[in-house]
Amino acid sequence: MSQTPDSAVRTYIGQHRAAFLDDLAEWLRIPSVSAQPDHAPDVRRSADWLAAKLKETGFPTTEVWPTPGAPAVFAEWPCDDPEAPTVLVYGHHDVQPAAREDGWDSEPFEPVVREGRLYARGAADDKGQVFFHTLGVRTHLATTGRTTPAVHLKLLIEGEEESGSTHFRALVEEHAQRLAADAVIVSDTGMWAEDTPTVCTGMRGLAECEIRLHGPDQDIHSGSFGGAVPNPATAAARLVAALHDDHARVAIPGFYDGVVELTDRERELFAELPFDEARWLRTAKSYATHGEAGLTTLERIWARPTAEVNGIGGGYQGPGSKTIIPSSAMVKISFRLVAGQDLEHIEKAVHTWATDQMPAGIRSEITFTGGTRPCLTPLDHPALQSVVRAMSRAFEGPVRYTREGGSGPAADLQDVLAAPVLFLGISVPSDGWHAPNEKVELDLLLKGVETTAYLWGDLAANWRHEP
Amino acid sequence: MSQTPDSAVRTYIGQHRAAFLDDLAEWLRIPSVSAQPDHAPDVRRSADWLAAKLKETGFPTTEVWPTPGAPAVFAEWPCDDPEAPTVLVYGHHDVQPAAREDGWDSEPFEPVVREGRLYARGAADDKGQVFFHTLGVRTHLATTGRTTPAVHLKLLIEGEEESGSTHFRALVEEHAQRLAADAVIVSDTGMWAEDTPTVCTGMRGLAECEIRLHGPDQDIHSGSFGGAVPNPATAAARLVAALHDDHARVAIPGFYDGVVELTDRERELFAELPFDEARWLRTAKSYATHGEAGLTTLERIWARPTAEVNGIGGGYQGPGSKTIIPSSAMVKISFRLVAGQDLEHIEKAVHTWATDQMPAGIRSEITFTGGTRPCLTPLDHPALQSVVRAMSRAFEGPVRYTREGGSGPAADLQDVLAAPVLFLGISVPSDGWHAPNEKVELDLLLKGVETTAYLWGDLAANWRHEP
Repeated sequence: MSQTPDSAVRTYIGQHRAAFLDDLAEWLRIPSVSAQPDHAPDVRRSADWLAAKLKETGFPTTEVWPTPGAPAVFAEWPCDDPEAPTVLVYGHHDVQPAAREDGWDSEPFEPVVREGRLYARGAADDKGQVFFHTLGVRTHLATTGRTTPAVHLKLLIEGEEESGSTHFRALVEEHAQRLAADAVIVSDTGMWAEDTPTVCTGMRGLAECEIRLHGPDQDIHSGSFGGAVPNPATAAARLVAALHDDHARVAIPGFYDGVVELTDRERELFAELPFDEARWLRTAKSYATHGEAGLTTLERIWARPTAEVNGIGGGYQGPGSKTIIPSSAMVKISFRLVAGQDLEHIEKAVHTWATDQMPAGIRSEITFTGGTRPCLTPLDHPALQSVVRAMSRAFEGPVRYTREGGSGPAADLQDVLAAPVLFLGISVPSDGWHAPNEKVELDLLLKGVETTAYLWGDLAANWRHEP
Repeated sequence: MSQTPDSAVRTYIGQHRAAFLDDLAEWLRIPSVSAQPDHAPDVRRSADWLAAKLKETGFPTTEVWPTPGAPAVFAEWPCDDPEAPTVLVYGHHDVQPAAREDGWDSEPFEPVVREGRLYARGAADDKGQVFFHTLGVRTHLATTGRTTPAVHLKLLIEGEEESGSTHFRALVEEHAQRLAADAVIVSDTGMWAEDTPTVCTGMRGLAECEIRLHGPDQDIHSGSFGGAVPNPATAAARLVAALHDDHARVAIPGFYDGVVELTDRERELFAELPFDEARWLRTAKSYATHGEAGLTTLERIWARPTAEVNGIGGGYQGPGSKTIIPSSAMVKISFRLVAGQDLEHIEKAVHTWATDQMPAGIRSEITFTGGTRPCLTPLDHPALQSVVRAMSRAFEGPVRYTREGGSGPAADLQDVLAAPVLFLGISVPSDGWHAPNEKVELDLLLKGVETTAYLWGDLAANWRHEP
């Protein structure tokens, strides 16, 4: 398969850029917040909108797949060569909660472009990155003269990624035959920086739990009873304090069981990246690094499991004071997991650990909500090398390797479909995922379009799945 | 001075009981919640109501004393014998916050009598116990034929006890001459049980603080950054966990400096009380005891300082999950203090300790709100023995000794007026101070009336302050 001159690809993208951005803005206006029940109709509307847009793009098959939660969108565009490999693109159309008063400079669901950046909830995570595949496949066809993509192209865009992908694995299992693919391409990650294109080789998994601690049947007087009965807020705090040892390692027995350790080669590749800790801290809006002893920051966020408190509460939180021993307290903890860790094993370990920590007189209730498996693809995988080449053409330079600290349900696809998972993302750390003023860099968004315009041809030419 | 036959006292009280309870109910209907700014007019109304009622009782002088916060009420009724000792009664007319939805069976500010108990916020803490002094002095006069009390009687009923008595010490200092007394009688404590009258010999003090911890400038993604920056909710929890050592002793350096240890005689007296731990736990609505190693429950709550978390909060506390590292967290801690501990020293020790605990990248703000000194009166003090005798007549049996785990500004009176502080309280632990369904036992309330009917004569006959 001949390589299309890159200038033709860029010209085509330039011609269709305005319409592409208008369409994306229309989609971003739908507040498809899957974690908030009152936005359920918006999540459904988002799925319908996307299915219609993919049909318009040219996909012969577009379907909205219901789940017991939010619906997913499936689309399929077969290649005219039945021997071509099958690629399944994964992304999500739901978004994190957002409200103007959280600190947004403009309405989160009213996209605006300022200085080459498109600001809106979902601009980077993940609608923008799903959407570059639409103009990408059109560019691929237009510049190669093909009438079908060079690979059998499938898309699965789920609607519950931001609320734990609760029904995703069942959905994939139910439709395993239609989803069958030689490789999965996940477009729900990022790259190193505007000037340092990278390809991601793995994502952390996620286990989330809420622990409720019950002490006295009601708030009681801290003078009359203080110092002589257990305090559930203190017990919650001591539980959280026991999460980590003095080296910031997670102290739950069995937590590290099976963890795939970093290879020396991966540590070298991480170390080659132009990591500026001061700049990274600014992106993290933080004032110091902190983490597992003996590891670099990149090793900590990409290759090590963690335990983070997402929320804690108990007793009187209003103005002034109230001299009580509170009746109850609550902690929400999320665990990031790495390859080799098993979700069910972690849940069991956390349950046993937390229960063992409870002092006499404090009753705990531990609930796990959702869970996402970790995944990891070997550096030398041939399909991964196709992604690296396509990206390298689009960005006109070398592509380096990263991992992703965040989580997505990619590992479920890996498990059920028995296919390697590759990552193609163009978001950068300053895009503000889950934060106020989320944005995407327009130049990078179009590089995403361009990469996919090259990718399908490269994959078809250089790789064939050997089952 | 001749002792009035007890039956005459009881007959008089019986005749005036209905009007006394009607008046008290009228006062309890005023929601004088000093901690809530929107109740400030109610606190003023409560002061005016009390001043008018004391005037009606016969006090020649009744005044409402303003403070920069809530007003206090002062009343004075001199004895016709200029050589008689002067007694200052202390109590408070403000109450804790209360709302029906906190778990009250009836409106907290609509008093109701059920099965011999009067239910209302303030019934026991402290309006009921202030109010028994009104009928008490009337009974004393009526049954002795006196036209003035046997002692120079003064009342100081403050309006900020439930919000830290912020301006109390300054008020006492300002009016020190008019408040001058040979003994202070505090009616803001309790006794052991319905069938075990006791006199209290000391109260714990109170220091309250709020610690705010600031981490990232905004909530950040727990996947992208988790495991590599400090989490303020974790830091708050670790701070709270560091409050106590493994023996449940407060671990703040210098915290125990100066603590007056229990004498063997006091430990014996505590041990003589019919303490039923299972019953006490039911009163505490708790399921286990917990506290400083090597001490009994009574020793823990009466004679040892404590640190209790009254509230903790940070991050996402709503339904479901939000995978963030929170930007900030907060802890409210109150410390109960015992005789020998110094408020300013404690504040400094807490400040140093908390600041030292902060991990790099977490900024703390520590605010102290209010503070109450501890106090303690020797067992063999002659004025204390008068209280014991008067109570013994009213209750027709022996009176035992306790201390009080709660706090009041009595120690400021002790300091400024250089007078011993005695305690006369008839509340019982099940009265639910600071909790829903606060109540007072009507029989005990009238025993309070009866005790004061005997007390002024006994004091005048048996004790004279030697300056």
